[in-house]
Amino acid sequence: MSPAPTSDAPGDLRVWAPAGLPEVVPGDDLVALLVGLLRDDAAAHPDRALRDGDILVVTSKIVSKAEGRVVAADDREQAITDETVRVVATREHAGGVTRIVENRLGLVMAAAGVDASNTPVGTVLLLPLDPDASARALRAGVGAACGVRIGVLVTDTAGRPWRDGVTDITIGAAGVRVLEDLRGAHDTQGRPLTMTVTAVGDEVAAAAELVKGKASGRPVAVVRGLASHVLDDDGPGARTLVRLGAQDMFSQGSAEAYAQGWKDALDRPQDAPDR
Amino acid sequence: MSPAPTSDAPGDLRVWAPAGLPEVVPGDDLVALLVGLLRDDAAAHPDRALRDGDILVVTSKIVSKAEGRVVAADDREQAITDETVRVVATREHAGGVTRIVENRLGLVMAAAGVDASNTPVGTVLLLPLDPDASARALRAGVGAACGVRIGVLVTDTAGRPWRDGVTDITIGAAGVRVLEDLRGAHDTQGRPLTMTVTAVGDEVAAAAELVKGKASGRPVAVVRGLASHVLDDDGPGARTLVRLGAQDMFSQGSAEAYAQGWKDALDRPQDAPDR
Repeated sequence: MSPAPTSDAPGDLRVWAPAGLPEVVPGDDLVALLVGLLRDDAAAHPDRALRDGDILVVTSKIVSKAEGRVVAADDREQAITDETVRVVATREHAGGVTRIVENRLGLVMAAAGVDASNTPVGTVLLLPLDPDASARALRAGVGAACGVRIGVLVTDTAGRPWRDGVTDITIGAAGVRVLEDLRGAHDTQGRPLTMTVTAVGDEVAAAAELVKGKASGRPVAVVRGLASHVLDDDGPGARTLVRLGAQDMFSQGSAEAYAQGWKDALDRPQDAPDR
Repeated sequence: MSPAPTSDAPGDLRVWAPAGLPEVVPGDDLVALLVGLLRDDAAAHPDRALRDGDILVVTSKIVSKAEGRVVAADDREQAITDETVRVVATREHAGGVTRIVENRLGLVMAAAGVDASNTPVGTVLLLPLDPDASARALRAGVGAACGVRIGVLVTDTAGRPWRDGVTDITIGAAGVRVLEDLRGAHDTQGRPLTMTVTAVGDEVAAAAELVKGKASGRPVAVVRGLASHVLDDDGPGARTLVRLGAQDMFSQGSAEAYAQGWKDALDRPQDAPDR
């Protein structure tokens, strides 16, 4: 037996990315592949055997591959159009036009999340049809095979306004409290906390990305130490991390909104905005 | 001796938040406080003693407190105005008006990052004057006292467009490659990677927040397992994570940009926008 892992100390988080997942192809049984990966990893590192309260973080790309969400690369622009609910902003550059859009999952992403790296040559990948459902299926399947109560997150990579570089976010979730609502909690001075809803799902996605990396061939990570965020049931799903509609102060790029205002001023001057 | 920590396995990340930091007050020697905290923590958990390649993640709040960045709560609105370089968007709500602004650090944040929780009663906290300089001082001081080459990140909490919940981001950095540039790298199929610059600094901030929490009185975390991102010198600083100016497609809220377009159409119709 290995010694009791030091990571069980309170406030201690461990994140690792098992190596050795084979290339996933359409039709693969992703549960079986993940169970095999985790068993092989635990054979080499006994303290890594999956436990109650662990969170399995799975890059959406392998979910998409297993689910056959593959289209020919020649159809990439059409695929982006098909995945788009609403164009938020566009930018011309040397290589063409980048479209920042809201896709059918409520995610605002460049190219609608249609991905052209780490995909079979000649193809691009669409995001899973229903990543929350994918997460639920993985949670049920891996949990049952390993006899543990785990959480599952399906993640993707996205840019952010005002910040350079991309980070991973959670687009599918099962059994994880993706938002921690601290409203009603108090600070160390006894006053109500501000900034009171934490996007735990996105923070776990980011932590997992640090060990998975983009070029490493390790699309899966296990996060241990957040059992308090792991639920008995499937929970609310990652869709609750989406904030659009009336709460969205950035529903259009600035240039797009400006141009729309200009056009409307000329077309229907009777409808002047409030401000 | 404790056993060799399992966290040294490749691809393994450990994050912990030492307990027991006293309340920080203006004029405190933060280096001395942190060194004491880390030594006490290592006495209880020998495997946690700081090592080369560890990253120390420090909530900006305690940096601000030590640096005396405290103003009377009655002056909060004026403090926000003083910290503001540019108003990006405003929103009226029951409690008043939320101002999303670019502050003098290039951070786009609600209330310019002026914080009213976990501060002495009757006061609010401003962000550190120069968080990169604060990080450099902590890196030099803690590194020298502990005889290790570490990285230091100073973090704060921010909202994001289109996503519910807040996450921690890095606003000060020393000795950490906060952006990992994978341009030129290739995927497992041998093709150039897209999404090629990863905001490692923000992902580490997010991982650290998961163990620090908001109400726990643990404003410091140690991240082990990212030595490849820890530099020999102070490195580029967190300012490089800021992307504003010509690259910023969301320099104004949609409503603000729309209203500006409307106004300009009537005031100077000769200057019609390109689109």
